[in-house]
Amino acid sequence: MASSLSPPEVPIELHVENREKLLKSLTQHLSTSSRPLQGFVFLQGGEEQTRHCTDHVELFRQESYFAYLFGVREPGFYGALDIASGESILFAPRLPDEYAVWLGEIKPLSYFKERYMISAVHYTDEITKVLHQQYQGSGKPLLYLLHGLNTDSNNYSKPADFEGIDKFKMDLNTLHPILTECRVTKSELELTLIQFANDISSEAHVEVMRNAKVGMKEYQLESLFLHHTYMYGGCRHCSYTCICATGDNSAVLHYGHAAAPNDKTLQEGDMALLDMGAEYHFYGSDITCSFPVNGTFNRDQSLIYNAVLRAHNAVISSMRPGVGWVNMHKLAEKTILESLNEGGILFGDIDAMIHERLGAIFMPHGLGHLLGIDTHDPGGYLQGAERSKEPGLKALRTTRELLEGMVITVEPGCYFIDALLVPAMENPKTSKYFNIQEINKFRGFGGVRIESDYVTSSGCVNMTKCPREIQEIEAVMAGAPWPIPKTTIPSANGEI
Amino acid sequence: MASSLSPPEVPIELHVENREKLLKSLTQHLSTSSRPLQGFVFLQGGEEQTRHCTDHVELFRQESYFAYLFGVREPGFYGALDIASGESILFAPRLPDEYAVWLGEIKPLSYFKERYMISAVHYTDEITKVLHQQYQGSGKPLLYLLHGLNTDSNNYSKPADFEGIDKFKMDLNTLHPILTECRVTKSELELTLIQFANDISSEAHVEVMRNAKVGMKEYQLESLFLHHTYMYGGCRHCSYTCICATGDNSAVLHYGHAAAPNDKTLQEGDMALLDMGAEYHFYGSDITCSFPVNGTFNRDQSLIYNAVLRAHNAVISSMRPGVGWVNMHKLAEKTILESLNEGGILFGDIDAMIHERLGAIFMPHGLGHLLGIDTHDPGGYLQGAERSKEPGLKALRTTRELLEGMVITVEPGCYFIDALLVPAMENPKTSKYFNIQEINKFRGFGGVRIESDYVTSSGCVNMTKCPREIQEIEAVMAGAPWPIPKTTIPSANGEI
Repeated sequence: MASSLSPPEVPIELHVENREKLLKSLTQHLSTSSRPLQGFVFLQGGEEQTRHCTDHVELFRQESYFAYLFGVREPGFYGALDIASGESILFAPRLPDEYAVWLGEIKPLSYFKERYMISAVHYTDEITKVLHQQYQGSGKPLLYLLHGLNTDSNNYSKPADFEGIDKFKMDLNTLHPILTECRVTKSELELTLIQFANDISSEAHVEVMRNAKVGMKEYQLESLFLHHTYMYGGCRHCSYTCICATGDNSAVLHYGHAAAPNDKTLQEGDMALLDMGAEYHFYGSDITCSFPVNGTFNRDQSLIYNAVLRAHNAVISSMRPGVGWVNMHKLAEKTILESLNEGGILFGDIDAMIHERLGAIFMPHGLGHLLGIDTHDPGGYLQGAERSKEPGLKALRTTRELLEGMVITVEPGCYFIDALLVPAMENPKTSKYFNIQEINKFRGFGGVRIESDYVTSSGCVNMTKCPREIQEIEAVMAGAPWPIPKTTIPSANGEI
Repeated sequence: MASSLSPPEVPIELHVENREKLLKSLTQHLSTSSRPLQGFVFLQGGEEQTRHCTDHVELFRQESYFAYLFGVREPGFYGALDIASGESILFAPRLPDEYAVWLGEIKPLSYFKERYMISAVHYTDEITKVLHQQYQGSGKPLLYLLHGLNTDSNNYSKPADFEGIDKFKMDLNTLHPILTECRVTKSELELTLIQFANDISSEAHVEVMRNAKVGMKEYQLESLFLHHTYMYGGCRHCSYTCICATGDNSAVLHYGHAAAPNDKTLQEGDMALLDMGAEYHFYGSDITCSFPVNGTFNRDQSLIYNAVLRAHNAVISSMRPGVGWVNMHKLAEKTILESLNEGGILFGDIDAMIHERLGAIFMPHGLGHLLGIDTHDPGGYLQGAERSKEPGLKALRTTRELLEGMVITVEPGCYFIDALLVPAMENPKTSKYFNIQEINKFRGFGGVRIESDYVTSSGCVNMTKCPREIQEIEAVMAGAPWPIPKTTIPSANGEI
């Protein structure tokens, strides 16, 4: 069977709940600071973009905060929440008659009201009129606009703008941290979508593993993944550009972009590192599998793979509400260094290595990040929290303590990156830790990453269902069913 | 066998030829107007874009004019042609050390020089210095920048900008029409890429046809197409968002965008209209196939399909250098009206119908457009040529005479679009032509489009290799090989 899955109904009440969560949180904040419970949360949805001067329209994907509150898939909308009444209002673009010929039926406003479970829908050219009528207070109505820093991109969100905005008062500071914090913990309905994105992506990873062969191109693995998640999961978008790295490319953390476009040929002895995740109704997944392209781990590959798997498992054994993510990162680092030490690649005192930030030579990225409507979901740094300047730690996308309902990726990795390794091997402070002869064998090896998505509950729950043990991977690549029936886990050569 | 094709080597000398063509044409123009043969053609390549405030990077695709001249796949470049010496100069972004860890090897400038067959490569922060050194004339060096109207989007191209541009003289008017005209006729090497994009896309269309079944979703047809062209053709981009329209959706000319996202279920009795084309090394294809999803044309479907096919074939029989595209459009319109007349849907005098612009009720779009690095390749309107205000004709993307080497789509269509049909049936000037009883049967039918890519030679050559005759389509959908061996063309029920 091609897939055991099919796209689930999208629960639009999810967005009703998201709005209620925001209103509750915002109302609480305003009450605490003795501010009036009036005005509007006001957001601008995304617009379709054309490519440079041409009429080539890029496939539109809604802006994430707008998607969170309204779930609207169409471009050109605005949305408001009336803080006083709790009502939601959408503003739809007034489409020209020609739209019906070129782009499809011009839907009546009632269509959007019903589809998105909204209190009222008007046209975007009515924003000023409608909000002035709706406003209960005196003077200019107050708009709470979205303006704040995205700590992953270092970009600021662009507050809504429209003709007539000068007829309103504006608050640019209140909304962003509160709305961002709403997105940090996920509701049950949000979790069902993230789970589906994980299910179809996990299945697609297994499909790719089974079809990977020496001689193929990296992009063929990408194509298999994209096809499986779209064909059987209805996922038109991925959470991010697929990283299909083999051989030495697997040491390039964000391989796969236009300048490094998954175009190498898979070679005998290569490891593959495939970081791919589909998105379903805005909610994403983020999964990495690493395996040897020929289906059998050799000694060196096993050593590095198991170092990373041990780190992955050490972290998930420790994850629960209240645990600090920086500590989880350090735990992963330490576990990997211990394995490299046991494997004879490093020698010396582990704590001293950690002190010298040797972990960041092998894992220069952060252990994981919040996941949701954005792959790097916002809210990773509490306001005022400072970013570390230390190697590895400075790359952390969150430094927070885990909360129940947080979805976070656990993605330890171990890479042999010349640009980091060579200076560290030459640095008198760190050179003593390296077994030069051993480590030189790994120059060109690339790297291993294992990435699963976890939701924090009383402990944590794995949302990703990929083969992780070497034995499992070899079995699945040799044709065993997945999940492997519990009673018999055959290894690649048929042994139990 | 999954595919008979594999991605060809990309002939980078194609871009060398493109540059030579421009320099020749520009030099001629400057000579004619007695201007000095000095200064630089100067273009800015595209930049990677992130989604709103996030760090989600959209997959980059080079700006088309820059791609034409330099073939560079990486973002952040500038390029210059020295008119005096004919030398080409690329300016590459200076990448931070961290790039090597996150995004891949930092390539030396010599890599780009060799890869793109360029005279010299420098960094973007050296533009001013390098061009001042290179300039042979006196005073500020002159830059010919790209600034002009795209007649499909009505947008202007954004001229290059960089720090230090105030140290140059600028000419904003000369380059755009000349460079655009270079793109209008294709070289042999350009044709090989467009041909490959056509070959893999034609094969993918056949694959989709064979797998289409009642009960599937439209997006599953899209997924099959995307997978085939990427897996076997290495095509990571499509020329445009796939239009996978079935049933009444097939009357929506640009169906498939985010607000109408190919999400309908294929139903018994539906026609499918699939407009999909892959892109290979910037050069595109644009192909539409129409067929009944159950594999067998009924009487009504045959009537409309053959009306469109007759128009398609009438046009290609007439295409040759010097033929005016407006006349080809009118020929298609007339042929369709004749068929509808013969089929009993319309009655009356065909010339009178044409005079009343009745053809545009059934085919509101233009007959075709130039095709190349852009799907709607620029240069369709000669400078000064005015756009018609007449229905149908105003939608023409070109009004030119065919030139040898032009690649143009031939895409007649016949649609039953309520938004156009109802007013025309109610208009006393046109109502008399409609057989109301007959035409009402076609409300909800959708539409048929047949689109092939042709290159003008002494006559014209078909680059698209899809089944077109009803007999062929039914045979292929029933499992016959494609192309069908010439000696035996079985129909769907096995008859010869």
